[in-house]
Amino acid sequence: MHTAFSITTRGQGLYEFTREVAAWVDQTGVTDGVLTLFVRHTSCSLLIQENADPDVQVDLKAFFQRLVPPTTDPSMSYLIHTYEGPDDMPAHIKASVLPVSLSIPLVDGRLALGTWQGLYLFEHRDRPHQRQVVAKVLAG
Amino acid sequence: MHTAFSITTRGQGLYEFTREVAAWVDQTGVTDGVLTLFVRHTSCSLLIQENADPDVQVDLKAFFQRLVPPTTDPSMSYLIHTYEGPDDMPAHIKASVLPVSLSIPLVDGRLALGTWQGLYLFEHRDRPHQRQVVAKVLAG
Amino acid sequence: MHTAFSITTRGQGLYEFTREVAAWVDQTGVTDGVLTLFVRHTSCSLLIQENADPDVQVDLKAFFQRLVPPTTDPSMSYLIHTYEGPDDMPAHIKASVLPVSLSIPLVDGRLALGTWQGLYLFEHRDRPHQRQVVAKVLAG
Repeated sequence: MHTAFSITTRGQGLYEFTREVAAWVDQTGVTDGVLTLFVRHTSCSLLIQENADPDVQVDLKAFFQRLVPPTTDPSMSYLIHTYEGPDDMPAHIKASVLPVSLSIPLVDGRLALGTWQGLYLFEHRDRPHQRQVVAKVLAG
Repeated sequence: MHTAFSITTRGQGLYEFTREVAAWVDQTGVTDGVLTLFVRHTSCSLLIQENADPDVQVDLKAFFQRLVPPTTDPSMSYLIHTYEGPDDMPAHIKASVLPVSLSIPLVDGRLALGTWQGLYLFEHRDRPHQRQVVAKVLAG
Repeated sequence: MHTAFSITTRGQGLYEFTREVAAWVDQTGVTDGVLTLFVRHTSCSLLIQENADPDVQVDLKAFFQRLVPPTTDPSMSYLIHTYEGPDDMPAHIKASVLPVSLSIPLVDGRLALGTWQGLYLFEHRDRPHQRQVVAKVLAG
């Protein structure tokens, strides 16, 4: 069983889609197995992080903006792949550091996510994008 | 087949549990498939790293402490999610950069780990914690 | 079904092996499932990144060289695991930040890679190495 989630982004930041994934896993009828999530892009990421306090998302975005500033920042002047603007190569770098795939056990009809774990698409580009995440459940 | 490993941590650093995982995989009787490991928290990580020289673990801890210092460090004053102390938000950031899930092939009755690869729980919080890692084997 | 890819590296940088993987997946005859890739080393990584403009690979290498400079750089003098030279411990650190395993859905006979996604072995050591990547397909 597989599907694809389409996620609309409006600039850098985290977009939660835990409910959509859990609802689809329910529909598959599979109670035990592994869910694989895979994002089909090189300038955004998947992330599992705290879903209780929205400040965590603000801080994550701020940290990664400092770790990999836009190429308008003099410290990043060594980067050469800048066709699509100052957020282009930094987005690829962030997409290397953060997950492109996630594997989540499915046990007794539920994803094994902890109480505070939410599923996010982490957008690294400034402009709006339509992002595709492929989901696959293997039973067993 | 699935189980959960409970790992007691006493502050930041790496806690190896390779043997426990290998012993459980043996018990399942599955000789070919994939082992999925998943940590149910947002302030610690899984990690596969060198298990020969303990200095590697010292250096890894030191690097990540410098990459993401506690919020008592002036350079981190921009972080706002600091309820639970100076190691709170840095722990979430480290847990974003390091793996939450791992997928390890099981071939001819053995995990495909290389000679020097050990499995670790990487704790990012200062206080003792009880951490849960869900393990699932799919045969095939 | 499983195999191992042997990849010869000649210093730090990215080595693409998308075609080899796609050809092997074709040979398995499996049309739906999940491909697991796992690198059996602690000083190189797997990476999915843009395969269109080679400058992306140049920039990725440059970024990670700056994030984790060799231990000849005074800023890294705190590292103690330096037996094998100035690229030794930095390689372990990069191998912690970048993926050791990847999970890619296989849908309708094709890997779910996006148009611009290539599969790479990211070598973090200076000297030539022979690297092993285990591949496993689970059908379902």
